[in-house]
Amino acid sequence: DMANISKKVSWSGRGDDRGERTPLLNGAEDGKYNRHVLCFPQITQDIVRSRPKEIPHNEKLLSLKYESLDYDNSENQLFLEEERRMSHMGFRCLETRRWVICGLIGFLTGLIACLIDIAVEKLAGYKYSAVKQNIEKFTEFGGLSISLILWAVLNSAFVMVGAIAVAFFEPFAAGSGIPQIKCYLNGVKIPRVVRLKTLAIKVFGVICSVAGGLAVGKEGPMIHSGAVVAAGVSQGRSTSLKKDFKIFEYFRRDTEKRDFVSAGAAAGVSAAFGAPVGGVLFSLEEGASFWNQMLTWRIFFASMISTFTLNFFLSIYHGKPGELSSPGLINFGRFDSDSVQYNLYEIPLFIIMGALGGVLGALFNVINYWLTIFRIRYIHRPCLQVMEAMLVAAVTATVSFAMIYFSNDCQPLGQDNTEEYSLQLFCADGEYNSMATAFFNTPERSVRSLFHNPPGSYNPLTLGVFTLAYFVLAVWTYGLTVSAGVFIPSLLIGAAWGRLFGILLSTITSSQSIWADPGKYALIGAAAQLGGIVRMTLSLTVILVEATGSVTYGFPIMLVLMTAKIVGDYFIEGLYDVHIKLQSVPFLHWEAPPTSHWLTAREVMSSPVTCFNRVEKVGRIVDVLSNTSTNHNGFPVVAHTTENDEPGKICGLILRSQLIVLLKHKVFVERASSRLSHRKLQLKDFRDAYPRFPPIQSIHVSQDERECMMDLTEFMNPTPYTVPQETSLPRVFKLFRALGLRHLVVVDNENRVVGLVTRKDLARYHLGKDGLEELHLAQT
Amino acid sequence: DMANISKKVSWSGRGDDRGERTPLLNGAEDGKYNRHVLCFPQITQDIVRSRPKEIPHNEKLLSLKYESLDYDNSENQLFLEEERRMSHMGFRCLETRRWVICGLIGFLTGLIACLIDIAVEKLAGYKYSAVKQNIEKFTEFGGLSISLILWAVLNSAFVMVGAIAVAFFEPFAAGSGIPQIKCYLNGVKIPRVVRLKTLAIKVFGVICSVAGGLAVGKEGPMIHSGAVVAAGVSQGRSTSLKKDFKIFEYFRRDTEKRDFVSAGAAAGVSAAFGAPVGGVLFSLEEGASFWNQMLTWRIFFASMISTFTLNFFLSIYHGKPGELSSPGLINFGRFDSDSVQYNLYEIPLFIIMGALGGVLGALFNVINYWLTIFRIRYIHRPCLQVMEAMLVAAVTATVSFAMIYFSNDCQPLGQDNTEEYSLQLFCADGEYNSMATAFFNTPERSVRSLFHNPPGSYNPLTLGVFTLAYFVLAVWTYGLTVSAGVFIPSLLIGAAWGRLFGILLSTITSSQSIWADPGKYALIGAAAQLGGIVRMTLSLTVILVEATGSVTYGFPIMLVLMTAKIVGDYFIEGLYDVHIKLQSVPFLHWEAPPTSHWLTAREVMSSPVTCFNRVEKVGRIVDVLSNTSTNHNGFPVVAHTTENDEPGKICGLILRSQLIVLLKHKVFVERASSRLSHRKLQLKDFRDAYPRFPPIQSIHVSQDERECMMDLTEFMNPTPYTVPQETSLPRVFKLFRALGLRHLVVVDNENRVVGLVTRKDLARYHLGKDGLEELHLAQT
Repeated sequence: DMANISKKVSWSGRGDDRGERTPLLNGAEDGKYNRHVLCFPQITQDIVRSRPKEIPHNEKLLSLKYESLDYDNSENQLFLEEERRMSHMGFRCLETRRWVICGLIGFLTGLIACLIDIAVEKLAGYKYSAVKQNIEKFTEFGGLSISLILWAVLNSAFVMVGAIAVAFFEPFAAGSGIPQIKCYLNGVKIPRVVRLKTLAIKVFGVICSVAGGLAVGKEGPMIHSGAVVAAGVSQGRSTSLKKDFKIFEYFRRDTEKRDFVSAGAAAGVSAAFGAPVGGVLFSLEEGASFWNQMLTWRIFFASMISTFTLNFFLSIYHGKPGELSSPGLINFGRFDSDSVQYNLYEIPLFIIMGALGGVLGALFNVINYWLTIFRIRYIHRPCLQVMEAMLVAAVTATVSFAMIYFSNDCQPLGQDNTEEYSLQLFCADGEYNSMATAFFNTPERSVRSLFHNPPGSYNPLTLGVFTLAYFVLAVWTYGLTVSAGVFIPSLLIGAAWGRLFGILLSTITSSQSIWADPGKYALIGAAAQLGGIVRMTLSLTVILVEATGSVTYGFPIMLVLMTAKIVGDYFIEGLYDVHIKLQSVPFLHWEAPPTSHWLTAREVMSSPVTCFNRVEKVGRIVDVLSNTSTNHNGFPVVAHTTENDEPGKICGLILRSQLIVLLKHKVFVERASSRLSHRKLQLKDFRDAYPRFPPIQSIHVSQDERECMMDLTEFMNPTPYTVPQETSLPRVFKLFRALGLRHLVVVDNENRVVGLVTRKDLARYHLGKDGLEELHLAQT
Repeated sequence: DMANISKKVSWSGRGDDRGERTPLLNGAEDGKYNRHVLCFPQITQDIVRSRPKEIPHNEKLLSLKYESLDYDNSENQLFLEEERRMSHMGFRCLETRRWVICGLIGFLTGLIACLIDIAVEKLAGYKYSAVKQNIEKFTEFGGLSISLILWAVLNSAFVMVGAIAVAFFEPFAAGSGIPQIKCYLNGVKIPRVVRLKTLAIKVFGVICSVAGGLAVGKEGPMIHSGAVVAAGVSQGRSTSLKKDFKIFEYFRRDTEKRDFVSAGAAAGVSAAFGAPVGGVLFSLEEGASFWNQMLTWRIFFASMISTFTLNFFLSIYHGKPGELSSPGLINFGRFDSDSVQYNLYEIPLFIIMGALGGVLGALFNVINYWLTIFRIRYIHRPCLQVMEAMLVAAVTATVSFAMIYFSNDCQPLGQDNTEEYSLQLFCADGEYNSMATAFFNTPERSVRSLFHNPPGSYNPLTLGVFTLAYFVLAVWTYGLTVSAGVFIPSLLIGAAWGRLFGILLSTITSSQSIWADPGKYALIGAAAQLGGIVRMTLSLTVILVEATGSVTYGFPIMLVLMTAKIVGDYFIEGLYDVHIKLQSVPFLHWEAPPTSHWLTAREVMSSPVTCFNRVEKVGRIVDVLSNTSTNHNGFPVVAHTTENDEPGKICGLILRSQLIVLLKHKVFVERASSRLSHRKLQLKDFRDAYPRFPPIQSIHVSQDERECMMDLTEFMNPTPYTVPQETSLPRVFKLFRALGLRHLVVVDNENRVVGLVTRKDLARYHLGKDGLEELHLAQT
């Protein structure tokens, strides 16, 4: 059923929540889809031109259902009055509160990371010891099938619980959450993504999926968790808990909330990798457009507190309270700087590894892309999703088991052997099966072993088979309806083939001195693979440097990540971007496509625009807001529109949400009566309604009231940003992106409104293979 | 002579360069200074209201002589045509060129760092061995005065050479250059600051001053050097060498140049501290407003290449070619993570140290502030400046000598003693004088010793006296007419009292276990002192983490830097900001003062504005440009100004520089003749003239030509950003800052020009002790 498909295409598929209706952006007339841009031959027009009834899945579509966040304050009279009333001390107090909130965000994120870490450790520990006992008992009798079944059943059970929670209770908790957070920071409102319920299911789900032995990591979900914590704490209330603490009310608007969510995401990265600086850079790389020093410091503070909290509680858990020097959730171990130096002639090798990582990463993304489309088409029922997740868990267990069974890579148990669950299996006494070790650990531990185990710990065949098997499992796993991240599996695959690469190098060359340590190549391989899959450069470099605790490898890691990005981008975008595109999110990149100087605001804008008069009839407002076929969100307020089509001079901009609040409070001016009859509306009324403004349908306006007038002067933003019609697209784009706008009014040289530019108008243009392409808009 | 004082106040004091005249910003009418803003009582008005003839030094003034950089492209027809002609491939090619330039910037900056490092090592080595020999010879005879004189003379000679170069040949090479680079990145054009000559003198000067034993570092100058390299390389030509390589012509505009200068500054930091990430953050913290991902990656690339180049060449110099693992110019040594952990209960101690650092830093800044004012008043002749520098050098030598002489802090020569110039002096055999060691090393080495020498290497008295002496010397030295930085002296002072703090802790408490290593406290002290003086937070944390090669101390360093900043800000601004204020630079901070919502564009803007018609008489243009009393830089172009005062509708914005080029090429439309008679002007003509456009006086316009007309349509920016008059100051500020504007046109609701907002209009408002204050503008 295609209807169901189009529903599943989006993260906000469960549109049953009345408070979260997602009205279209202004100007999304039907006629728009038919617009031909004949004067620009490079714009491909080979896509369906009429609005399709059944939306086939198509990445050349932009969904109209996503709202934008408004990073631009509506500086209306109420706001200015409040600001002007506030003393210098008041502003200082606000600033202090921001710091306190960031501290809280960091603290809570650290706590959650700690909870996840301990829960996973405990659960995985129980599971491994049960299976190990079982294996050891049965190895003597030669029959391992019972152990296999036990293992597979245990894993599937864990995964089932997690998948059920996600699929039935909160589908938005699926996946790593990083694409969603990227979109949020980019300015797209993804419904339900920063809800407390999402957080709870996410945390529960990730514990289950990691404990269930899937090829997943817990880092992506940590970043999402941090963002949810931030959104919750900064607003001082929770809708899920129906609790309003009546604090931090000043911060109840998109501008402030988005800033805090950046801090939360950074705190999440920081907790996940022990990388506070990497967290800050992640937030900036993904989200920020306007760099503000104080904001960055607050983000950094939240990150630091988060790592600190995690370390503090883990130090207690590990029985060494107060020793804070350990890093984050991931502990890649410390590279001893003396033993693993690199030399000039290794740099070409690193670059080759980077290219390899790029190719393998692109392969990963392509396969996952097709798999995701398959899932969108055929696996959209929750029970099917749970079954798929369980199947993957069982297959993962079986593959691991088979590989352990058929490999006979026995390694001597060293005196400094720190493997917690080393298995003897068919090996001689005093030896252990290294394949079993690789599969019998949480992925983090396996990465660490690959980085740090002494040369000779793994034989090449083991590594090769492991790489292949884990690659397939990881590709299959990402996108399942479980909450799980892709960082650790990527690192693990990369570390495996990197180490293999290092071992091969040392066998090819006779000189054993410099190639001796394959751990170095494991690190580079891990970076290459991760870079090839997710394509972050700056933040990833810093994250890896911080996670390994060594700045020595900064330069090679950067080189490798750059190479991987360049090579990978040749084939396909990064994994997160692939998934964002698959959801048809109107994502704004950093700059307009370079060849878009042809286009001007006149071509880009939506028109005609529905405007309101300064004093407008209530009936007309209700009618416009109720019109589901347009569903505009922002309305220019003009001096006087005559009934004919001549546009009026702009004098402000008012949002749907503001109008809704005005209607709800019946701020009407009855004809020929005093304007002062009603209680004066305050900013507080708007804040209380934020962010889930009621839909227009829930507001009853009587026939008498429809004849009343509403004076919008006090509530509209009197100084919206405007551009003339001749402005080039890159210029419009820059203004829009730099200021985080939601609506940009296009005016003629008489200051009359002629059009409105919104996010989708800008996100439509992108650089394809044949030059500039225009995506089509669709009501998915 | 007060005239001379006002000359010395500014970095661009030597205004003898005709090509570098600094015309006023538009709207800087005399009447402006008299403007009373009566409606806002919190604006203090107690400052001289008439334009002073002799400008007493006053930090409540903003100088009008600084031009702004224009980060906003003038998207005129020529530009749009060029962009439209360019293919997708062309843009890719440009992008590649940007990467190549960043690579070159990194490479050259690394080379310069290498040169400075080796030269300083060599010279200081010769000097120390000469003096040491001398001392050893004379110690036996009890007479040290000859050694003292030798030392003082050697030091003074080095410093004299450096000071002469700076004072007589290029005064802009004085100091660390960081305030100037901060201003440049902020968007203020500081003349001569990115010239090749400045670079040459700077490099030479810093070698002399470090070798001369002054209490200075070579890190600030490295940052400046990187910026100069970037400005030079990216433009593909040098005015000093009168050489145009005819490459990179596309990048000859403020937008591109400023991006490259950011990369250069980052490369400089990276080379100086071995901190590529710190470099990126420094650039962003100081410069960026609009964060662009690709730009950031390029900056990071330049930083990485810079560290890499430095390491590569230093590895050759040190005889281990190809070993790239060593860090930058500074090598703080690696903290072994096992031996120096920190514990929860040390955190309050760290905070106390941070507060102490804040207080000491503020003291440093206050003393240096008064000293700088003294210098501006009385030491403004080059010969006096050279003499002061020599005096400081001699005093530094004497103080050191006296302290070595009177201290008898003998320490045993350990077997792993790595001090290069350890002095026995009056100590027993097998021992060395530790005070002598502290003074007898380059400051970098001394910092490293303080961080890493085993407990007991220094006795408390030595450290106390050393801190005091070095503090005084460093305060005195910063601001001398030599090129030198303040990073290393700050770190050294801090490391000394930090180590002292650590030693005292371990003597107070009986438990020797955790307090045992004073090196940890030396690191924290160094961070506190540096943070107290310069007040950078994020970038400094990362720089210190990278320079020490250990992420373990990230959290305490951040805490300490935050505390130092908060405490220090209570007393006085950071050192660089103090110096920027002393130069009356119109520096734009991140946000408008919070209590400035009272003000709107109407109050802030300059008016009336000189406008031009679309087709304007040449005579009028020449007259307006020649008017030295106004000296506007940007002119709104209006549809038709009538002779009466009614403002015209805006249809564009044209810059002085563009008009000059038009006049030079005589792009005139003769009345009643064809417009196509002259060669079509191209963007290249504008680029060739960039950045030193000839002054209007050098362009001869005959009386006949004065009667011609000029058609500005093709050359003006047809879509300048505009704001309505009611826009609040914070909103104007945000737009201006986010887009890096130079001119922002204020229009009424008919789109008629009513005013112009420039940098100085916004920089004027700042938050003083009594609320919002307005600085006065002065023609210094």
